[in-house]
Amino acid sequence: MMLSVVLIGSGNVAFHLANALIANKEIDLRQVYGRNTAKWQHLKGKTKITNNLKEIDLADIYIISVSDNAIKEVSEQLPPLNGIVVHTSGSTSIDILQHPNKGIIYPLQTFSKEKEIDFQEIPICIEGNSTKTEKTLQVFAQKLSKKVFFVNSEQRKKLHLSAVFVCNFVNHLYYLGQKLCEESNLPFEILQPLIGETAEKIKLLSPFEAQTGPAKRMDTQTIEKHLSLLEENQKNIYNPYKWNGTYFRKW
Amino acid sequence: MMLSVVLIGSGNVAFHLANALIANKEIDLRQVYGRNTAKWQHLKGKTKITNNLKEIDLADIYIISVSDNAIKEVSEQLPPLNGIVVHTSGSTSIDILQHPNKGIIYPLQTFSKEKEIDFQEIPICIEGNSTKTEKTLQVFAQKLSKKVFFVNSEQRKKLHLSAVFVCNFVNHLYYLGQKLCEESNLPFEILQPLIGETAEKIKLLSPFEAQTGPAKRMDTQTIEKHLSLLEENQKNIYNPYKWNGTYFRKW
Repeated sequence: MMLSVVLIGSGNVAFHLANALIANKEIDLRQVYGRNTAKWQHLKGKTKITNNLKEIDLADIYIISVSDNAIKEVSEQLPPLNGIVVHTSGSTSIDILQHPNKGIIYPLQTFSKEKEIDFQEIPICIEGNSTKTEKTLQVFAQKLSKKVFFVNSEQRKKLHLSAVFVCNFVNHLYYLGQKLCEESNLPFEILQPLIGETAEKIKLLSPFEAQTGPAKRMDTQTIEKHLSLLEENQKNIYNPYKWNGTYFRKW
Repeated sequence: MMLSVVLIGSGNVAFHLANALIANKEIDLRQVYGRNTAKWQHLKGKTKITNNLKEIDLADIYIISVSDNAIKEVSEQLPPLNGIVVHTSGSTSIDILQHPNKGIIYPLQTFSKEKEIDFQEIPICIEGNSTKTEKTLQVFAQKLSKKVFFVNSEQRKKLHLSAVFVCNFVNHLYYLGQKLCEESNLPFEILQPLIGETAEKIKLLSPFEAQTGPAKRMDTQTIEKHLSLLEENQKNIYNPYKWNGTYFRKW
């Protein structure tokens, strides 16, 4: 079944979603919307481009992929629609949408425009306000990805939080590691096999089983040495793990 | 040049090192030492096994791979030796060793006995107390790995700290992510493509460029939602990033 889609928004998620939609032979990307149409110039000739929400084409699915704070406003500006209106936000409830047929298509991944990504490997979390809607969203999501999950709004909130831990906070730790390497005139590349193996390991072992290092060994001497190397604001990151229970207590 | 080695210790690093040494045709693993020889039973018939430091064989290189707190004691119990005595610790200075020819062979990786690993891909950081010693350690390390770095004791201290950030603390965040998934009846597998891509991304983009998420976007509304979902001791992990400067300030 061919499904027609209108994509609203022009951020990182919308950018990668548009590429996946355009490339998919079972999906008809009718139109993309952006306040600034310049962001969609690379799709000129491949689909219609608009910056007017009143001129939205008819489609089976309307995907609102804008910043969390803007979803409500954008959804309210849309004309009455028979198709399914979805957003792509991890932390926003389905209730924010006021359309008769509504849902979520939440691709659980970190998107940067500079980094290509294989959409087929991205877990897509779907939710709909009726069985029929969910069925259609499932068919749609399965065209884009091999990994489709039904995730309700309550589950999705916690899933989004855990994604912030395992992605954004993790990346911030990579950043701190890189700074320490730079301070020592060592290339960041020296840490990459360790970063890769740490991410790889938890496919085979649980994070609990995979844990290594001074805190696991209760090696307080090394921990004290580490603290002495850190600036005050970095200690605030190292310390909570040490003293506030969640780190030491669990291992 | 064939190099002969005695390996002292039986922890995770020694375990994987022994496997790499045994498999290497240009290295002669003469002997392994463990207080508890049962830990080395899988090497019976492949090399000599002892639990007596006074019976250490002659070799080109003696590798002390024991817990940081035990390095000094073990090194002092060794008889006078002409070969090079090294330890494998990231956070311990070369000065702890009292032998005429001494150095470090620090494999920068996370080792668990349950997880196999390709030693050729592990960065090995070497240091020696003379040019001649460093040359021999370089020849030795290059037999084990494609990635050999000269790293002095000052550099290695900071490198070890950064390894704790990008591996141990990262793994702890994976653990928190897994717990949140469990609480929501979602399989941990749903996070694995995100974990993999986050680790993969920093090969192409710097961690600074790769950052995404609510803190990067200054999306305080979502951050408040996240805090409301967390238990008190978990807030201690989320909060410092938010309030104590290092997280928000950098992006």
